[in-house]
Amino acid sequence: MTLEHLRSQFDEDLDELKKRLLTMGGMAEGMVADAMTALVTRDSELARGIRERDRRVDKMEMKVDRLAARILALRQPTASDLRSVIAALKISTDLERVGDIAVNIAERAMELNEEPQLKPYIDLPRITEKVRAMLSRALQCFVTGDVVEAREVLVSDQEVDDLNAQIFRELLTYMLEDPKTVSRATRLIFVSKYLERVADHATNVAEEVIYAVEGRDVRHGNVG
Amino acid sequence: MTLEHLRSQFDEDLDELKKRLLTMGGMAEGMVADAMTALVTRDSELARGIRERDRRVDKMEMKVDRLAARILALRQPTASDLRSVIAALKISTDLERVGDIAVNIAERAMELNEEPQLKPYIDLPRITEKVRAMLSRALQCFVTGDVVEAREVLVSDQEVDDLNAQIFRELLTYMLEDPKTVSRATRLIFVSKYLERVADHATNVAEEVIYAVEGRDVRHGNVG
Repeated sequence: MTLEHLRSQFDEDLDELKKRLLTMGGMAEGMVADAMTALVTRDSELARGIRERDRRVDKMEMKVDRLAARILALRQPTASDLRSVIAALKISTDLERVGDIAVNIAERAMELNEEPQLKPYIDLPRITEKVRAMLSRALQCFVTGDVVEAREVLVSDQEVDDLNAQIFRELLTYMLEDPKTVSRATRLIFVSKYLERVADHATNVAEEVIYAVEGRDVRHGNVG
Repeated sequence: MTLEHLRSQFDEDLDELKKRLLTMGGMAEGMVADAMTALVTRDSELARGIRERDRRVDKMEMKVDRLAARILALRQPTASDLRSVIAALKISTDLERVGDIAVNIAERAMELNEEPQLKPYIDLPRITEKVRAMLSRALQCFVTGDVVEAREVLVSDQEVDDLNAQIFRELLTYMLEDPKTVSRATRLIFVSKYLERVADHATNVAEEVIYAVEGRDVRHGNVG
């Protein structure tokens, strides 16, 4: 087998790995979006379906990890090839957690749909859009290897944290003024926190991309 | 180089990797314990130190990951050797997140210490002990390869979830009876949720151990 042949075999494997991560990411992102739609449109039927979809994401994680292990064993990659496979292993964990978070959002949505709506949802859909965009951009970066774009995802994380802090303060005010809102407001605070965690996972993905491409560990404010 | 020589080199590397993960785990577990002590004993000075300690855990994660990448590149392990290195990569992420969660607990502790104590803390120290035990047992299993013990860690996770649900209900009652408790009770609900997430990470570690030893993916209720 020539070196070129080995190279093209590895490239094929890596493409397949990226394709699976994109599919998995699309599923997880769609679940977060639908769980939030279930909350905003008070559609408990939609919320109920999220758990079943999470099982598929879980299966995808196992498939991605098995493929990554096979690539490591058979192709024995080094340098940036090795880092890409390691990044894929970490990204699959992040995406699986996003699926779990979508299930949590759906559970809170079902609970909230049992009671009258506390307030019009304005900031939560905004934070949802931001978080979805972060996740899909971060994954695209893994496919394209675009580290400039990946660094922009890192910046968005702060915006989500700020929006989340604002939602928290507003809901606290509701609870202080009227104890009857406590149970609903608490659940909405959870939802907002869940979205913040999805943004954290998108941030992790972006950091993994930079590590895979540049070999720099930018996690934890490390400059490499 | 003989096969035995390669074998012993890999074993040395893997031992070093395990040693580092144990150290890292001990640091993260100590941070959770101290953050909770800072809450229960109202010691904001202790809480303030947690962030600095988290930076050390972050550095440890990068070191563990670099060592794992080096082992994959130089030793090109297969089968259970390969799975152990993959498990180490995933476990380092879990431990790093535990460190982040300890920082979150410390932040809530500092906020809570600004106000009079809402109630005597009885269940939170209990849940803390359970969670710490889960984490340190799961890590020991990675060192010893004891999958029977690892499976017991998985069972403990449900106990933590139940305790957490109980704490949530109790704190909701406080808020309903007296709006002045809202801000403190909300923060305590967060603390309890944080502990539940530490337990989730301990569960992940235990699942990684079973995967490394048996090659079975027991995540997501998969029977292998």
